[in-house]
Amino acid sequence: MALIVKKFGGSSVATPDKIRSIVQRVLQGSQPDDKIVIVVSAMGKSTDKLIELASQITSKTYGREMDMLLSTGEQVSIALMAMAFQAAGHKSISFTGAQAGIKTSDAFNKGRILDIQPDRILKALDAGNIVIVAGFQGITGEGDITTLGRGGSDTTAVAIAGAIHADVCEIYTDVEGIYTADPRVVPNARKMDQITYGEMLEMAKLGAGVMQPRAVEMGSRFNMPIHVRSTFSDNEGTIIQEAYSMEIKQYLIRGVADDKNVAKITVLGVPNKPGNAYKIFAALSDANVSVDMIVQSVRYANEGVTDITFTVARDELAATNDVLAKIKEELGLEEILVDDKMAKVSVVGAGMAGHPGIASGMFGVLGEHGINIEIISTSEISITCLIAEEHVEEAVRAIHAYFLDEA
Amino acid sequence: MALIVKKFGGSSVATPDKIRSIVQRVLQGSQPDDKIVIVVSAMGKSTDKLIELASQITSKTYGREMDMLLSTGEQVSIALMAMAFQAAGHKSISFTGAQAGIKTSDAFNKGRILDIQPDRILKALDAGNIVIVAGFQGITGEGDITTLGRGGSDTTAVAIAGAIHADVCEIYTDVEGIYTADPRVVPNARKMDQITYGEMLEMAKLGAGVMQPRAVEMGSRFNMPIHVRSTFSDNEGTIIQEAYSMEIKQYLIRGVADDKNVAKITVLGVPNKPGNAYKIFAALSDANVSVDMIVQSVRYANEGVTDITFTVARDELAATNDVLAKIKEELGLEEILVDDKMAKVSVVGAGMAGHPGIASGMFGVLGEHGINIEIISTSEISITCLIAEEHVEEAVRAIHAYFLDEA
Repeated sequence: MALIVKKFGGSSVATPDKIRSIVQRVLQGSQPDDKIVIVVSAMGKSTDKLIELASQITSKTYGREMDMLLSTGEQVSIALMAMAFQAAGHKSISFTGAQAGIKTSDAFNKGRILDIQPDRILKALDAGNIVIVAGFQGITGEGDITTLGRGGSDTTAVAIAGAIHADVCEIYTDVEGIYTADPRVVPNARKMDQITYGEMLEMAKLGAGVMQPRAVEMGSRFNMPIHVRSTFSDNEGTIIQEAYSMEIKQYLIRGVADDKNVAKITVLGVPNKPGNAYKIFAALSDANVSVDMIVQSVRYANEGVTDITFTVARDELAATNDVLAKIKEELGLEEILVDDKMAKVSVVGAGMAGHPGIASGMFGVLGEHGINIEIISTSEISITCLIAEEHVEEAVRAIHAYFLDEA
Repeated sequence: MALIVKKFGGSSVATPDKIRSIVQRVLQGSQPDDKIVIVVSAMGKSTDKLIELASQITSKTYGREMDMLLSTGEQVSIALMAMAFQAAGHKSISFTGAQAGIKTSDAFNKGRILDIQPDRILKALDAGNIVIVAGFQGITGEGDITTLGRGGSDTTAVAIAGAIHADVCEIYTDVEGIYTADPRVVPNARKMDQITYGEMLEMAKLGAGVMQPRAVEMGSRFNMPIHVRSTFSDNEGTIIQEAYSMEIKQYLIRGVADDKNVAKITVLGVPNKPGNAYKIFAALSDANVSVDMIVQSVRYANEGVTDITFTVARDELAATNDVLAKIKEELGLEEILVDDKMAKVSVVGAGMAGHPGIASGMFGVLGEHGINIEIISTSEISITCLIAEEHVEEAVRAIHAYFLDEA
């Protein structure tokens, strides 16, 4: 007997036909005594349609009422899926986030899961049901419906798996697993059998879009194995877990990630007074702008000014410009330059710590290809270079060839 | 200050534009210190669309999961309406049936309201909100979502009005109020200013489609005045209440109702043994068929057989035929005749008791017009005749002219 949580995204449940085919797959792929919880997202584009309805009422967004609206999308999916299991002859019951005991903070549109009280889920499993839970939603202490924001359904699935001590949490996607690089860019990229939470977090944050970082963090917290696999095949995917199995071949580098959602801002002539850098980044933080890579260069020490370069996500560029325009005069900044045609390329691997050759190898590969590195940042398990977007695919292929192509 | 519950049906909230125009009407038509609760149905055809989705999964209906599905329709409406009030600058909050404290029996698809715990509604009103509540839904003691079945939103509105001791419950419809007869049939039918719960129940059961009997019964239980009025005008409609104001002109007859959803079944040659009639009607009751008018005629006493004639709603005719076919042999019935082109015409008025002239007046009018009466049934406040459907409009006009046309 296995206790398994399976998560299916919106495209997997986009039509009644697709829902029925998932039901067939789940029933064929499981043992009679397996206990199964399925977390589902809203059908296909239904969330977009609800957002469109709201936009016809008002151009503002109202947190609580928007969550009241959006949470109906998943509620439709779970009801239909439970009906489909019943129609296929299997006991099944659906639960909203509230009914599944998912307690969140009262931050509407971006609730954080505070606690899961899985009593109803466990009782329904014991009674022989396949339990269907609405992803992406929960309830506050007051009884208000919240949604969890981006990647919410993955997070719901992993959190429930942790709360009920499942054997594994399976995330079904439209790819076969996690690859050593984006297969559309690197044709000989390999699917990884395993990856650690830490490596996956680096890969995810750096743009490998398969898993949301929040869900990976949740998995790490519960030490819950996450199996990322294909909706469309029975092949094993990639297991995200704490450490590798003993027998797996150790690579120093596990994968190459890229991220094109990057804009570079250079603030020229920041008067070199204590607190000036702080003021810039505090103002950005107040405007909810996440700053990523930062480098400060002292131009000429005797001029008393420095230049500060940093990166933000492109969709936060407008907010960034607003903030900088406001403080430009107050801080006496000389000039602000923006380049939104940048990208990041990274190597990730838990084994790289203590191997100084990795960084120099990466820089050497980029140099050989004539690709200029604008900023470098490193973590325990990754090295990231900021380069021009036009070179990113060439860079990924070259780095993959150098570190990861099998002989 | 007034405490008012207003209910708007699905056609009134069919589009975001219609929702915004209701919001404008409510704000213009109320005083700043009024406390307002609004009960809404699902938008336009959205419930039909959800039913269509479910039918693509399975041809069976699954009670609990169907309610999980259908309840999303009202949840969308309430969220959009609360947003619309906020966009118009007024505090507003939406509540699902569960959040509004509407506790029901666990009869899915046809839940009965057992109790309302209006704490959140009252708190939100005190905080200055216009409170929007999802009609047609509630929650069981287990925390499962139920829907209330036909007329559910009217019932929700009246029950909430009772629970919070509102001054009045306003039901907005596409007509101006309750008329002395269907104005499409009787051009000089008059809108009534007042009608009693009892009269309205007779009118409603007999086919005057404006109010569902359940909601009228709920109003009677709480002695809550129900104001039936037009969504499209500011005219006063009809107040349904316990008794008339002292000053109102007393009519013996208040209105003429008709109902074309009638089929007549005649069972010929029922062996005249004790229990045979019981067996027929028990079998129909087991099949959930509601039998309305019944007449039993002993043909020739010495033949030992009787004929039984009764009426059912036309949409229950198929089930009725099934039941009779099954018991025909067992009971030794001779023949079963069906006529689905029948209709009922009724006069209703709380003042008619003790005025025997009413019945003879009605029969006389029908006789003058050559309309044959097949069955007669009476209550304290109504007289109903079964006639051929082809004559029903002529009958309604003639009866209205006799009893109700103003001199």
